[in-house]
Amino acid sequence: MESTKDRIVIASAELFRRQGLTATGLKQISAEAQAPFGSIYHFFPGGKDELADEVIRRSGAFYLLLFEAILDPAPDLVTGVRAFFAGAGETLVATDFADACPIAAVALEVASTNEPLRVATADVFTSWIDEASRRFRDAGIGDAEAHALALSVLCSLEGAFLFCRALRTTAPMDAAGETAANAVREALAAVGAPVA
Amino acid sequence: MESTKDRIVIASAELFRRQGLTATGLKQISAEAQAPFGSIYHFFPGGKDELADEVIRRSGAFYLLLFEAILDPAPDLVTGVRAFFAGAGETLVATDFADACPIAAVALEVASTNEPLRVATADVFTSWIDEASRRFRDAGIGDAEAHALALSVLCSLEGAFLFCRALRTTAPMDAAGETAANAVREALAAVGAPVA
Repeated sequence: MESTKDRIVIASAELFRRQGLTATGLKQISAEAQAPFGSIYHFFPGGKDELADEVIRRSGAFYLLLFEAILDPAPDLVTGVRAFFAGAGETLVATDFADACPIAAVALEVASTNEPLRVATADVFTSWIDEASRRFRDAGIGDAEAHALALSVLCSLEGAFLFCRALRTTAPMDAAGETAANAVREALAAVGAPVA
Repeated sequence: MESTKDRIVIASAELFRRQGLTATGLKQISAEAQAPFGSIYHFFPGGKDELADEVIRRSGAFYLLLFEAILDPAPDLVTGVRAFFAGAGETLVATDFADACPIAAVALEVASTNEPLRVATADVFTSWIDEASRRFRDAGIGDAEAHALALSVLCSLEGAFLFCRALRTTAPMDAAGETAANAVREALAAVGAPVA
């Protein structure tokens, strides 16, 4: 059974992802979470910013687990990256193009307006970049190349979320996934690593 | 001399890009545009949504001109695409990572919440995709490949804007630009087109 605090965080994560931070009021969070309004301030004395910080960090950590859950069983990195993009496309369709990156909408809202929350989004993105870099390095790709490849693959994914949501089609995700998989394949081939 | 209406649109575009649609109030627009509050409703009887629609479409059209201004004089598509990403990185640095895509923040806010404005962002993105596809086709790339390549390059660019703004570094733009330029080079090479 979820705790009241968990329900607040989960409801907030969903609302932030779909409509952004500013558009989401505490009253709506309270209603969606079926939690008394006062409980939000009980668990998050700092109000919406403290709640948003926790939502960003928890959503980011959850997404990292999803990343691992798909990459770990994949026979190779190319297949794994391709599967991640395909899964993202399936989630978009299943949610009527509402559920995409857990923090992108908030990240763009806060980047120039709320420094503590910008730092929270940066910490999450950095954790993803570090995890992807580590996997690429483990496969034999050099440090600098692995980092650049991680950035490139994640940029493709985030841009695809934006285009898919706006255009209501998974074609951008398919195209971005193909490019990302090719980039990984070439980086592996360049160091003579087994590709598939 | 800019008209009052132009000042309202320009101020709105800047505010939407930096802080999003919901966070931007008409009072702030009025102040930034140095335009009487009532003039906003004079020019946009439909209020904020009508103003946002015009801002999205005008910003998108302006960005398309920028795209053409950089691609037209480039000696080849690979160089042109590389220059576009490099220019985007320079703009990010020059604006303290505030000015990026003119409509991404708004697009994520409205995708699941405001259908008329989602359509406006989709129209803009489609115009960019069509223009990039046309250039790739003109260079000899097949229809389906040109469309996928346009999607992939634009996904890389949009994702890079997000990561650069959140991380306050142009490293994601550099990495995304390199991947995009490579993808264009390979697509040209695959059809035997001159690359550079």
